Amino acid sequence: MLNERLNQQLKFMLELDKMKNLYRQTYVLHEDRKENDAEHSWHLAIMAMLLSEYANQPVDVLHVMKMVLVHDVVEIDAGDTYCYDTDGYKTKAAREERAAHRIFGLLPEDQQKEFYDLWREFEDSETPDARFAAVLDRLQPLLLNYTKGGISWQEHGVHKEQVLARNCAYLDVSDELGDAIKAIINDAAEKGWLK
Amino acid sequence: MLNERLNQQLKFMLELDKMKNLYRQTYVLHEDRKENDAEHSWHLAIMAMLLSEYANQPVDVLHVMKMVLVHDVVEIDAGDTYCYDTDGYKTKAAREERAAHRIFGLLPEDQQKEFYDLWREFEDSETPDARFAAVLDRLQPLLLNYTKGGISWQEHGVHKEQVLARNCAYLDVSDELGDAIKAIINDAAEKGWLK
Repeated sequence: MLNERLNQQLKFMLELDKMKNLYRQTYVLHEDRKENDAEHSWHLAIMAMLLSEYANQPVDVLHVMKMVLVHDVVEIDAGDTYCYDTDGYKTKAAREERAAHRIFGLLPEDQQKEFYDLWREFEDSETPDARFAAVLDRLQPLLLNYTKGGISWQEHGVHKEQVLARNCAYLDVSDELGDAIKAIINDAAEKGWLK
Repeated sequence: MLNERLNQQLKFMLELDKMKNLYRQTYVLHEDRKENDAEHSWHLAIMAMLLSEYANQPVDVLHVMKMVLVHDVVEIDAGDTYCYDTDGYKTKAAREERAAHRIFGLLPEDQQKEFYDLWREFEDSETPDARFAAVLDRLQPLLLNYTKGGISWQEHGVHKEQVLARNCAYLDVSDELGDAIKAIINDAAEKGWLK
């Protein structure tokens, strides 16, 4: 009953509902449950609105927002790989590439390319926009974990050095956010929430 | 330890975590639970990326995305008013105005104004951007409900005329999306999912 293009777009949008059932390792603040990918992506987009003024190199806010909204879509097929799971990381790239082809392949060709390119740019993490999106993607779980007493670090026995290593590649993206990230990690370690 | 401006922005971002615990009347597709405001807002932002080509009057996609990402933030204090709850609607405006002042008031003054204006523009529903955002806000639960066999309409005994009335004010915003909305409502009524 709808034209084929709109049909494809709505099917893709309904497929993405699965993001609401993909649970990460981070907890939401006010319920005893983990956060899902849809909630996480929304939170990053809000942060892009709030914090883009702190990027050392100017960023395109719309482009950053689009990237953070779709960066985890591949997890519908590939699952969430916990950032300190070294085994999972070995197969992550291949699993996610296959997922990107299937999921973005539901879209009309022009949008297929647009969405795939956004995801690829985020993964490659080379442009100022992608690197700024990556900082938000690290700062958000850090803030939630810190505010909730380091619960997820303690569950997984995470070391301060692991958290620093995960974040240090991005400290040059923003002086202010970099300082905030270092301060949070140091304080979490002092409180005994990180090994 | 952080500068005051960044401190305010991060406090606001953490306050917004409550959106993840505000449950709507619509169900997610693949779990037996209702959708929360964070998930809903993320889904609308994805739809803004996907469907802005169908706006009869050109829209500013970044502006529409910002609006849909924050349009429900006031529900942190004011709660979700079900769209067919006529009593709740009598006090909705006053409750939400108070909420907007408290919540956006957490931000530095310039962003306070930016966020309040986005919310106000969405509520007033007069600009092409706000009216396009409103169509997405109607189409999303309609599609989820329809895909899930009209579950939420049946729970509340909703009539076809109520759904038509809620949507008809926006049918001129997009010919294609308007046609889709009408087709979905008619089909749901034929299937007996609407009274």
